[in-house]
Amino acid sequence: MLNGDPLPSWREGSARTAILEFVRSVCDPGESFVPEPARVATFDNDGTLWCEKPLYVQADFIFRRWRQMVEEDPARREEQPWKAIVEDDHAWLAGVTDHLPELIKGVTQAYEGITTEEFERAVGEFFACAQHPTLGVPYTQIGYRPMRELISLLKDSGFAVYICSAGGRDFVRPVAEQLYGVERQCVIGSATTLEYRDGKLYRTMGVEQPIDDGPGKPVHIWNRTGRTPLLAGGNADGDISMLESARFALLINHDDAEREFAYDAGAEQALNQAATQGWTVVSIKSDFAEVF
Amino acid sequence: MLNGDPLPSWREGSARTAILEFVRSVCDPGESFVPEPARVATFDNDGTLWCEKPLYVQADFIFRRWRQMVEEDPARREEQPWKAIVEDDHAWLAGVTDHLPELIKGVTQAYEGITTEEFERAVGEFFACAQHPTLGVPYTQIGYRPMRELISLLKDSGFAVYICSAGGRDFVRPVAEQLYGVERQCVIGSATTLEYRDGKLYRTMGVEQPIDDGPGKPVHIWNRTGRTPLLAGGNADGDISMLESARFALLINHDDAEREFAYDAGAEQALNQAATQGWTVVSIKSDFAEVF
Repeated sequence: MLNGDPLPSWREGSARTAILEFVRSVCDPGESFVPEPARVATFDNDGTLWCEKPLYVQADFIFRRWRQMVEEDPARREEQPWKAIVEDDHAWLAGVTDHLPELIKGVTQAYEGITTEEFERAVGEFFACAQHPTLGVPYTQIGYRPMRELISLLKDSGFAVYICSAGGRDFVRPVAEQLYGVERQCVIGSATTLEYRDGKLYRTMGVEQPIDDGPGKPVHIWNRTGRTPLLAGGNADGDISMLESARFALLINHDDAEREFAYDAGAEQALNQAATQGWTVVSIKSDFAEVF
Repeated sequence: MLNGDPLPSWREGSARTAILEFVRSVCDPGESFVPEPARVATFDNDGTLWCEKPLYVQADFIFRRWRQMVEEDPARREEQPWKAIVEDDHAWLAGVTDHLPELIKGVTQAYEGITTEEFERAVGEFFACAQHPTLGVPYTQIGYRPMRELISLLKDSGFAVYICSAGGRDFVRPVAEQLYGVERQCVIGSATTLEYRDGKLYRTMGVEQPIDDGPGKPVHIWNRTGRTPLLAGGNADGDISMLESARFALLINHDDAEREFAYDAGAEQALNQAATQGWTVVSIKSDFAEVF
């Protein structure tokens, strides 16, 4: 039994009630009981566990590296995507569909050829100094407090909790424990291909397929856990397959312009599907008593 | 503290002593102490945790399916690798290097297009009825008892224990708990590519790259755990990279023709390297009081 209120940053309401009722139903003896090993929870990261606006945290990380790459080799200022960074060309950078090959090239070249240890050091240095551009706090403080409480509740209830990020697995691993209490072996995400030689693992130019987004999410979850999620949480269209594959699905709705950001771009289909699929929609404005 | 002898099926000797001393050194306070989350152990499966002769267990599984495929479509008896199965052509089947494309085609076609659930059912049916051809017991009884004891000792000592098989991850998962006390999420191995649609995961014709052998082993271990192994165990040349990457390495030497099989084919380089790299060689003949 849990003592006290396990979700103090959640307001009374249907989302909170549905979550508590579901967790109780799988833990208590009865028809809905699920044995501990099958209690697997998976959460998208960007926009689900931490703030993804005005830009993805990992984009900030990559953009800083691109600026550094231009300093190392000024000829890069004539070549995309480095040109866009130097010129603060946000429109070009936002055109992901139009500029995908250049963007992927830039992302993979940014940390190509270094070891996983060196990459982890670079990630550590970023989180030690970078701040969120509008919230004015280190990125290690932009996790949603109610979601951290939910993760704790699930772990206390015998769930194995995994992060399932479309972003970089090895970018989230070094901070997942501090931010969410999630161990590094429980971080699932997209990844650069790696090569082992002479006792080290080197990042290479490839991207592991499928990436951990859309229908790739249930594939990654199976590969890692050998199971489908019992509970899943997401906030965007890229999470639909994962949410569909779970018995209980949470969809975070970003509707709080005052305390966070209000947007539904990239989540239109998910929000539409929520009603017909019986997903529990979490309103940041109404359901979160505290956001950060 | 552990009560009683944690390794009753191991004979007194340098291997047993080295293992116990290493485990003690990482658990006790002092210079060699390793915090629990970094205590990761990885074991090859075929020939390390269970018997791999006279043929791989998974080969038996696949060969039975090939016979079934010929019954379903008799035209296959003219096509390799089905032809070799029908004709009991062991020489052809053993020529892995010469017949790799045909063998891979046969392996992927054997269970192509079915769901992960259906595949798991097929694996379950195989283990429920198949017997080891010379030992005359179900395959669920051919795990090495001393290795099972070692896995228990490691788990009791705060290690996370993973299987790291060059063979099929989803072939080993359904029996890993019963055979070794290793949870399905801790089984690492080679895998068929998967595709998610309509709420199910389907096996497709591809093979996930890299396969979990040779230099692919440390890559798979990192992808799954975010760590390099503290302790690793193997028995063949395909395990060399994994053994090199671990702080403590065990190499099983198959030298007991009476109780198991005596062979060093495919392990020549590993046995040579063991001395120079300080690996602990485990002689089945001398170090195992019981084998099964």
